[in-house]
Amino acid sequence: MPFEWKYQRLVPERRPPGHQPAAPRYSLRWTEPRSTLVSVYFGMQADAAGDAALAPAHIARIRGFLAEANGPAAHEIMRCTDEAGLENTIVVAYWTEPGVYARWLEDSGFRPWFDDPARLGGAVGYWFEALVVPYDRHETIYSAPGYRIGLARTPATEIVPITTNGYFGAARDRLPLSAIDTLESPSGGLFPATTEHASRGAHLCAVVPHNCTVLRSGQYWEGAGQEQLDDYMNALQPKLMRGMAYLVEERERTGCLSLRIMTNLNEDGSARAETSVYAAFLSLNQLEAWAESHDTHMEIYRHAIAMNRLYKEKREVVTWHELFVLGMGNLFEYVNCHPRTGILPYARVLTDRG
Amino acid sequence: MPFEWKYQRLVPERRPPGHQPAAPRYSLRWTEPRSTLVSVYFGMQADAAGDAALAPAHIARIRGFLAEANGPAAHEIMRCTDEAGLENTIVVAYWTEPGVYARWLEDSGFRPWFDDPARLGGAVGYWFEALVVPYDRHETIYSAPGYRIGLARTPATEIVPITTNGYFGAARDRLPLSAIDTLESPSGGLFPATTEHASRGAHLCAVVPHNCTVLRSGQYWEGAGQEQLDDYMNALQPKLMRGMAYLVEERERTGCLSLRIMTNLNEDGSARAETSVYAAFLSLNQLEAWAESHDTHMEIYRHAIAMNRLYKEKREVVTWHELFVLGMGNLFEYVNCHPRTGILPYARVLTDRG
Repeated sequence: MPFEWKYQRLVPERRPPGHQPAAPRYSLRWTEPRSTLVSVYFGMQADAAGDAALAPAHIARIRGFLAEANGPAAHEIMRCTDEAGLENTIVVAYWTEPGVYARWLEDSGFRPWFDDPARLGGAVGYWFEALVVPYDRHETIYSAPGYRIGLARTPATEIVPITTNGYFGAARDRLPLSAIDTLESPSGGLFPATTEHASRGAHLCAVVPHNCTVLRSGQYWEGAGQEQLDDYMNALQPKLMRGMAYLVEERERTGCLSLRIMTNLNEDGSARAETSVYAAFLSLNQLEAWAESHDTHMEIYRHAIAMNRLYKEKREVVTWHELFVLGMGNLFEYVNCHPRTGILPYARVLTDRG
Repeated sequence: MPFEWKYQRLVPERRPPGHQPAAPRYSLRWTEPRSTLVSVYFGMQADAAGDAALAPAHIARIRGFLAEANGPAAHEIMRCTDEAGLENTIVVAYWTEPGVYARWLEDSGFRPWFDDPARLGGAVGYWFEALVVPYDRHETIYSAPGYRIGLARTPATEIVPITTNGYFGAARDRLPLSAIDTLESPSGGLFPATTEHASRGAHLCAVVPHNCTVLRSGQYWEGAGQEQLDDYMNALQPKLMRGMAYLVEERERTGCLSLRIMTNLNEDGSARAETSVYAAFLSLNQLEAWAESHDTHMEIYRHAIAMNRLYKEKREVVTWHELFVLGMGNLFEYVNCHPRTGILPYARVLTDRG
């Protein structure tokens, strides 16, 4: 039996009585107990010319650090253009033992490199967003059991069928902690004032608000035939992009603190037929409100379900996500970045004394 | 059945096979599930004259904040003279729902007062050490079931008899997480270099190291008869003080980052027949090494056990502790404090930008 974590419910589940999901869905389990999951995004930020010149070396450097003792159980490389129009090269890495991650951070070459005053100059910024997440604050969903990505690339895992899907509130129900905690934003979802910090030439640490909800949502269409490829490119992807644009444009309503539409990369740096959307929300409530009621999400949702029903097990496009409702104490770090990077404009910001 | 949290063991327990404890001991349980416990120390630091003038007002001020919406489930007042010889007035408060604590921190008057630039001047320092602890990273022990103190003053709790006591490693075995995590210091217990930060006139945040182990150990002899009182004052308390002095004097060996020998206070500010020792260690390993092998602890331990056996249920001195092995992400905050306050000399320190 894989590891599960269940609390005796104090908060009612959202699953309707007798619910049977319309389409099969899957979730990740570990075969051994896990207390804390760690997902870390390492970014480099530059203009197009700087990015072209430096991205391969950045990837190689971070991978070099990750290859040291106590490195992650899995990692991937991606890129995105951020809200300010700069190019970002990103390595995401996963640990499933917090003590191993802490030791890597202590012993590897990453911290001395990242903290080096040399990083503060020049036209390139570096950032480091570490999500350290108690197991009961995470949930995953996959449209198919065969494709391994994100946390699902860590060892000692199984992808198992679930029935907590296909209704509004299912993501919440999949979070073990939701059985005893309503996971509300301490600010009641009130969007924070925007602050423009003097972030260039500085090493800033942003304190992630309690119950900030981080979603990595993935789309994989490598090897899809022409028909499903056309549908994905012409129908689903545009709907997805409209939804993402709305989340950012109306961020005071949606609670979206940070959004990155990332393209996954092959080993040689070329683009894969795969994207990952990283989105940080002030609260799970706000993500749910968008998902349950806004046209831009309803269109994505209905289209994905319709294609699943049409193609069934012949569906060649995989969609999935992993979601973390962060507790207190996560720090995102930014060195020489522009002031709109990540959650910088919307968080309590501390300065590293170097 | 009270709430319990058990992992399938990956790390062997330290309890010897067939162990029967020599003396009865008790532990705290909640009658409803708990995910995270919160223990916050609010301190004011001043010289003797400043303390005499300001301590009652400080206690009243903090209690005023705690009485606002979403305040703690319990709190106590204490005082101590710190390592630099300054007087510290301390309020410790307990929450058992992290969302309630987060909301209190967001909405109460505490943060605006603490963060006010007015706090940066003058001869008085303020500090705020918040321990936000996943349930599986805590354990408690009491020598008697009838006296409620610390976490045991929070509602929906029971004090239950245990048998994981009376052997070396019992505290570790009582930590649910120890079943799957060895709880080691990422630095391998190597004591950090001492840094003297320019902490006067500044608002500094110290990042608590992963697996830092914080113990609140209590002694209560209110109402003890002359015989047991004499024994406590003349035998047990001096042994305790010798042990505490050793922990600090040999801190590079013991891993003791911070130590406060606090006297509990009555409502009117007078001293109770009760003390609490707060000690933060780099790792549980180091606390265990002292407890298992050093004369100063063996003397305390043997004397306490002997008195328990002598007086049995007539023992009038209660000893207890609550222990937290902190995960990543706890920040201790210091405003206008002297540079040896708390963990300041031994931690990564960030500056609040105000």
